[in-house]
Amino acid sequence: MSREVKIGKVSIGNNKIPVVQTMTNVDTADGVLLLKEIQRLSSAGAEIIRASVNTEDALKGFAYACRNTDVPLVADIHFDYQLAIGAAKAGAAKIRINPGNIGSQERVKEVVSACRDYGAAIRVGVNKGSLDVDLVEKYGKTPEAIVESAMRQVERIERYGFTDLVISVKSSDVSETVESYRLLSKSTDYPLHLGVTEAGGGDLALIKSSIGIGSLLLSGIGDTIRVSLSDDPISEVYAAKNILRALGIDKNFVNVISCPTCARTSIDVIGLAERIRKATINVNKPLKVAIMGCVVNGLGEGEDADIGVAGGKDKSVIFSKGVKIATIDNADIEKTILELINERI
Amino acid sequence: MSREVKIGKVSIGNNKIPVVQTMTNVDTADGVLLLKEIQRLSSAGAEIIRASVNTEDALKGFAYACRNTDVPLVADIHFDYQLAIGAAKAGAAKIRINPGNIGSQERVKEVVSACRDYGAAIRVGVNKGSLDVDLVEKYGKTPEAIVESAMRQVERIERYGFTDLVISVKSSDVSETVESYRLLSKSTDYPLHLGVTEAGGGDLALIKSSIGIGSLLLSGIGDTIRVSLSDDPISEVYAAKNILRALGIDKNFVNVISCPTCARTSIDVIGLAERIRKATINVNKPLKVAIMGCVVNGLGEGEDADIGVAGGKDKSVIFSKGVKIATIDNADIEKTILELINERI
Repeated sequence: MSREVKIGKVSIGNNKIPVVQTMTNVDTADGVLLLKEIQRLSSAGAEIIRASVNTEDALKGFAYACRNTDVPLVADIHFDYQLAIGAAKAGAAKIRINPGNIGSQERVKEVVSACRDYGAAIRVGVNKGSLDVDLVEKYGKTPEAIVESAMRQVERIERYGFTDLVISVKSSDVSETVESYRLLSKSTDYPLHLGVTEAGGGDLALIKSSIGIGSLLLSGIGDTIRVSLSDDPISEVYAAKNILRALGIDKNFVNVISCPTCARTSIDVIGLAERIRKATINVNKPLKVAIMGCVVNGLGEGEDADIGVAGGKDKSVIFSKGVKIATIDNADIEKTILELINERI
Repeated sequence: MSREVKIGKVSIGNNKIPVVQTMTNVDTADGVLLLKEIQRLSSAGAEIIRASVNTEDALKGFAYACRNTDVPLVADIHFDYQLAIGAAKAGAAKIRINPGNIGSQERVKEVVSACRDYGAAIRVGVNKGSLDVDLVEKYGKTPEAIVESAMRQVERIERYGFTDLVISVKSSDVSETVESYRLLSKSTDYPLHLGVTEAGGGDLALIKSSIGIGSLLLSGIGDTIRVSLSDDPISEVYAAKNILRALGIDKNFVNVISCPTCARTSIDVIGLAERIRKATINVNKPLKVAIMGCVVNGLGEGEDADIGVAGGKDKSVIFSKGVKIATIDNADIEKTILELINERI
């Protein structure tokens, strides 16, 4: 179990439900636009939001957003330690750096000092693309090198007694990512930020992040998650929420399960399930709804569903927890199920 | 490592690349339609295709398809042992049964005998919805009950010396599915058929199957996979192929990786990646293409890419294996990358 670290008003670690993150891709320098984007992503379910702070102008935009929202904001910093210090002063809840590209130990010390003074946590983010040269020579570009590189950078911060740390060790290779985090979780009890880097776009990217993040969460590893997609960041938020839902970690939603359909199916399983899923997307209450195409497996496989239908030729069986409660015309299935859902929420 | 079992012309097990399966959802009784569907799914990448054989008419349609394709076909049987025997005689490469719902041992014996005579393998498919009552009493509806139930049914077939077996133990709960297969893989060396049952539709379903199947494959478990979606079965085939690609098990494709985009990005990373992915979807050659929004991480994180671009304000850097090979106008990125891909295939 990892220790608890506060990121603004949000706590991560200590066996809490993993916190959903995303990163903005608007121009950080445009503070008004950035704030609007933060509000949009926060409404969709992002609990921590990161923005790139890569110039003085970006720092101003970031500071504007910090002043106008209580959503914990993270400044993504590369190379420039002055921007890291500026972001901490501006109200960042966390600074994401790789101390390896910040430079001298003196600079690291100044960044740590600013983070302590202004209450910002630090994420040490090591990617396979930014490893220490000597470790690559020693291990090759392996999970061992990634983890040792991360722990070395952590030590450069810890020596000042600063422990509000989060660590990430990302790679674009799923198997390497999973191995690295498994190794890392044995070396530290700091909260871990999970992600597969440069996952790309489309279904392949969603699948990469799902397997990488999902299999780690299944092993009890991971305290905050970010799905990287080359897409609108709101897709990242939905994907992250769906990973938590798929694993049963987030249970507060209408879980519409359905059979894969086959020749036995005589009702529109696909359409029904999709329509019920859409109609209930904002219900934050745990409810399991089963849309089954036939009675062969329907009642058995759907028996832990709160509400279910097992399709028949003209009439279908409505059931609850495996017990038949009504037989209705197929034309009334959707209406009946939505009514039953409404009764329970 | 699991032993090898032949499913028609396809072998599974013995550390081979997991074989992609799907299931038709047209009326099996319509043999002509079924055959057309099998050809469509096979062209998309399905290596083994299952159909429900639930009536005498369905058996006729299934037999017609068997006579007219060399794609290994699987008959999905529930309850009726005569249909199982009929399907074996008709040329099924595999019969999917749960002997528990076939009935007496005498009937199981007849089914096994037909499968031996006509060269059909058997998948013993146990779902959480169809467990033996005494095991549920002993263990509750747990992975232990699922696995012991499966192994008990396997024994009912093995006693006739029949070992052309494949086993599946599915649940709609991802964590339970993963635990069941992990337990099963310790109890047997028969090839395992992986899937999450009633995964439902939409992204949540895709994510459930990705995590369940993906995390098992990451542990070296699984010989054939089926993604269950309440959707056109062709989506199941693409999803299964994407899982194998995401894990690097199937390397014969153009893997377009891209950065998640941020304020530093000055080229259209999302659009470019998507257009290149679509233009190369049918290339069965291993090639890694990196679309990176900036030079900060671009060359480093994309350094194992065969072809890559790191975006700049007006001009971008084209690189190969981390080495810069050209600087081009941003308007020429797509054309240049597609040309470079064509040169290599």
